[in-house]
Amino acid sequence: MTEAALYLIPVGLSDTGLDTVLPQHNINIVGEIKHFIVENVRSARRFLKKCDRSIDIDTLTFYELNRHTKSEDFPAMLAPLMGGEPMGVISEAGCPAIADPGADVVAIAQSRGLKVKPLVGPSSILMGLMGSGFNGQSFAFLGYLPIDATQRSRKLKEMEHRIMRENQTQIFIETPYRNNALVAEICKTMPPHIKLCIATDITGSGEKIVTRGVKQWLKQLPDLNKVPTIFLLYK
Amino acid sequence: MTEAALYLIPVGLSDTGLDTVLPQHNINIVGEIKHFIVENVRSARRFLKKCDRSIDIDTLTFYELNRHTKSEDFPAMLAPLMGGEPMGVISEAGCPAIADPGADVVAIAQSRGLKVKPLVGPSSILMGLMGSGFNGQSFAFLGYLPIDATQRSRKLKEMEHRIMRENQTQIFIETPYRNNALVAEICKTMPPHIKLCIATDITGSGEKIVTRGVKQWLKQLPDLNKVPTIFLLYK
Repeated sequence: MTEAALYLIPVGLSDTGLDTVLPQHNINIVGEIKHFIVENVRSARRFLKKCDRSIDIDTLTFYELNRHTKSEDFPAMLAPLMGGEPMGVISEAGCPAIADPGADVVAIAQSRGLKVKPLVGPSSILMGLMGSGFNGQSFAFLGYLPIDATQRSRKLKEMEHRIMRENQTQIFIETPYRNNALVAEICKTMPPHIKLCIATDITGSGEKIVTRGVKQWLKQLPDLNKVPTIFLLYK
Repeated sequence: MTEAALYLIPVGLSDTGLDTVLPQHNINIVGEIKHFIVENVRSARRFLKKCDRSIDIDTLTFYELNRHTKSEDFPAMLAPLMGGEPMGVISEAGCPAIADPGADVVAIAQSRGLKVKPLVGPSSILMGLMGSGFNGQSFAFLGYLPIDATQRSRKLKEMEHRIMRENQTQIFIETPYRNNALVAEICKTMPPHIKLCIATDITGSGEKIVTRGVKQWLKQLPDLNKVPTIFLLYK
């Protein structure tokens, strides 16, 4: 019997089979949980079916947690766990609580002294870093860069500074339809000794993780329009 | 037949069974690779035997890559991959190239336009962050803190600054026999609104991921002497 804890359950990043990106252990755990806090009910259902075709979705309870959820509704979601039943957190892609609302409910669980158990799964941040060849002893993930042009170029300057002064790899993402504009701006504004790693469709059939100097990229800018991509900068 | 690439092969962080922390896919890939770049030959052999008891270790070639390896010896290690054969990188624990010499050989592979393929596996940094309830949209891993008292307290001040100003979770490690001293220093010097997450033995039987305010920790300091631990700070 699975112990009562808040299990953080990663999902795939791409259309690859689950056994490519998730340990069997995760599938076993999922099968023993009846209450799930999810970012999107439909895709969570799809994921659970993929884990186990024979799973009876109708016996499960889903609590939706996304930007529309009021924070005062978070604590009530944990009632089953407070009552001694295991619960799962499932986000839209990758690892829950890394770049999604899952972190809020984990924080509440922690504040109540409830057990939290993260499970192993794919992270585009970590896999991008592994594949980049950049410094993995010091790195920062910044999420989305500012949209405002002034703020954005200030952010890029700050990243350059931290690469040079702190030997810290800088990792970030962009809204996919703005990818091309971002890459062009980076390659034009960053000094020649800065390297850019572009990691697209990680774990997917079109996976590409390529590191080049910014001036080298400038010679042949890739088309990343609407392609899920993570960007890494270092020297 | 596995395509020619430099496969970054994570290993376990604890004594847990491999199916708890690694996808079946990794085990399949490992079985098709004959040339491995490893941090420690003995533990790499042990890992490969754990993946597949029937594996014939004597048919495999190992290239040792650690702090004793001269950087001019790195490129030669990639000869089999240059010749079209898949190669694997295996570090002592967790994900290769994140906090070990693997990153250097990945950088060389990237500079030669060779394909790099990171595989999914456990990362104490990522799993600690997932379980902490801290901000996963902006975070930094700093590796080891400075040993020198002045530099260390300056570093702690800087972390506090980035937590408050940039809402950036700060993640770091310490040499295990210094864990207790570090926790005591953090809890005494950080302001009351700072929270500390202590994540020990991640994926292991003694796994504990606990977030508390620094003043709350101060009331009852845990004994982390020689226990593998990752530390996270946020507000």
